[in-house]
Amino acid sequence: MQGLVIDALRPLAGGEVRVVGASRTDAGVHALGQVASVESPRPISPETALAALNATLPRDVRVLAARPVGEGFNARRATRLKRYGYLLDTARVPSPFFRGFAWHVGRSLDAPAMAAAARGLRGKHDFSAFCAAPGRDRDPVCRVHSMRVVSRGSRIGVLVSADSFLHHMVRNIVGTLVEVGLGRRAPGWVVDVLASRDRRTAGPTAPPHGLFLVRVRYASAIFPGGRHLGLRRSV
Amino acid sequence: MQGLVIDALRPLAGGEVRVVGASRTDAGVHALGQVASVESPRPISPETALAALNATLPRDVRVLAARPVGEGFNARRATRLKRYGYLLDTARVPSPFFRGFAWHVGRSLDAPAMAAAARGLRGKHDFSAFCAAPGRDRDPVCRVHSMRVVSRGSRIGVLVSADSFLHHMVRNIVGTLVEVGLGRRAPGWVVDVLASRDRRTAGPTAPPHGLFLVRVRYASAIFPGGRHLGLRRSV
Repeated sequence: MQGLVIDALRPLAGGEVRVVGASRTDAGVHALGQVASVESPRPISPETALAALNATLPRDVRVLAARPVGEGFNARRATRLKRYGYLLDTARVPSPFFRGFAWHVGRSLDAPAMAAAARGLRGKHDFSAFCAAPGRDRDPVCRVHSMRVVSRGSRIGVLVSADSFLHHMVRNIVGTLVEVGLGRRAPGWVVDVLASRDRRTAGPTAPPHGLFLVRVRYASAIFPGGRHLGLRRSV
Repeated sequence: MQGLVIDALRPLAGGEVRVVGASRTDAGVHALGQVASVESPRPISPETALAALNATLPRDVRVLAARPVGEGFNARRATRLKRYGYLLDTARVPSPFFRGFAWHVGRSLDAPAMAAAARGLRGKHDFSAFCAAPGRDRDPVCRVHSMRVVSRGSRIGVLVSADSFLHHMVRNIVGTLVEVGLGRRAPGWVVDVLASRDRRTAGPTAPPHGLFLVRVRYASAIFPGGRHLGLRRSV
């Protein structure tokens, strides 16, 4: 993605462009509100950048807005809060409309048990147990502002907001909550997993295609509407 | 679609299969709840039919449920009510998530004006003005049970329930309501179009890919859950 953005803006930049995305999403992960900062030797107006990017990028990636920011602004380092959503499809037959956008578990899940388990992960904790590559992230402590499980028909959504996330953290939390939803573990087990700080105690990593980066927040509102660069990774 | 269902069931049927769909949707139109009736020389259990169809049909078409019905039941003729939804995307930049699932109008629409216009189409009327092929449908009188315009963010939905629909009726109604939404016509114009019974007075036909067959109802509840054969046409 970064490379595609650089290629689209290079002709306008009069030199090398630097692009930093707020979230390093894995292949298959979707984004409703990714944000990227761009540094260019020559000034590019937001309107020109928007038009050039949407004319060049693949159709499943659209830039929804562009704004000028102060010198030295870095879309990753300046992040105050990120929100992710994860979609589970419990229907026996997977809906074609959610193919590539939900993990088809295909069995009913105990959503209230999952919600009870999820509540134990709120607050400031060492999330090493849910980190794919311990040590890769220097600080394993994250402050989880909200963590909810919502269900609607045969779909269950897991919504997490935090000041920072470790590698595969949401997918590992979801894989762990699904163990509870399937009745294999009691809700209280999830807090034990958290306390262990040991990845081997947690559940499997949920597949990437159910994960959505929903929004990114900064200290000041760069995009007042709340919707930013809308990137959808192909699946 | 019909041909694919016939091909999937022929090996089990011991002869020629007859398949009738409740709605003849055009290419590009989606369905959340299509219903089809199947007649087979040899009895096929619903479980077997479900498994055979989902093993054979393309992945963007899934059969959600199958039930036995009485002799002579015809999924088209027995229809009491059908509900369609049409999705409009008014955002300047089209959302990748709605590509192929909404008409990207790309300009803001006056949803309250559209809703006011839509109200005039409720009830029992001759809908010839919204029929693509007058004369093709023998009876141009339809009873519209509900007709609503709902908006959420930059998306607008038009929801129509009726006992029957003429050819391209929903798409022609939506194309006409969009003329009102764009401010080109007053809401009251739509009732004049209806009264004219002349297709040439109405707005353009909205593209097929914003249209969804939402559900089909019969005198008796064949599928108590309300969700039936879920077909999604490729776009």
